[in-house]
Amino acid sequence: MSKEPSSNLESAMQMLIKTFHKYSGKEGDKYTLSRGELKELLTEELGSYLGNSKDNEAVEKVMNDLDANNDGEVDFTEFIILMGALTVACNDFFLDSKPEDKGKDGAGKKD
Amino acid sequence: MSKEPSSNLESAMQMLIKTFHKYSGKEGDKYTLSRGELKELLTEELGSYLGNSKDNEAVEKVMNDLDANNDGEVDFTEFIILMGALTVACNDFFLDSKPEDKGKDGAGKKD
Repeated sequence: MSKEPSSNLESAMQMLIKTFHKYSGKEGDKYTLSRGELKELLTEELGSYLGNSKDNEAVEKVMNDLDANNDGEVDFTEFIILMGALTVACNDFFLDSKPEDKGKDGAGKKD
Repeated sequence: MSKEPSSNLESAMQMLIKTFHKYSGKEGDKYTLSRGELKELLTEELGSYLGNSKDNEAVEKVMNDLDANNDGEVDFTEFIILMGALTVACNDFFLDSKPEDKGKDGAGKKD
């Protein structure tokens, strides 16, 4: 992971991988996030999205949604699905907040 | 999109969104990638992953795999699915290349 990324997309991929392993390596299985590790990751890295809620409710909800095989651990694929869903939600938010751009050049959404 | 990201994960999300729109805005529908725009994005941003192949074969394959609704355009969600799959593949590659780490502290993969 020491190779310098040569584009924004490669940087983004490296950041996702590094951030996951920064937390997943803290306790138990080094390659999955426990409930505690997920909570730390969410509050430290995505606090502004989750409203810095101090209670466990948001973390429990995310964990239950993500933990498809119900073993109390979130693996890297499950983490990427969460990040993908969040990124799509963010993108929709940006598009929705710029409705005046949508129709320009006859280039609006085709359906 | 001018707000400074406050963590690596937020930076990664912003990079994915910005890179998509840098290419999707070039022609036709501003919010989807045409075949030409996808090719430009793949070769300029992910050239090192795709081996800088000059031919269209890799691009055609990716486009056909991604374009679920078969309209010749890749939308943001389809793009994120591609990036997620690539990131999971990269992560697996890094883990596979460090087998000596896997068993340490009895913290290897549980199945």
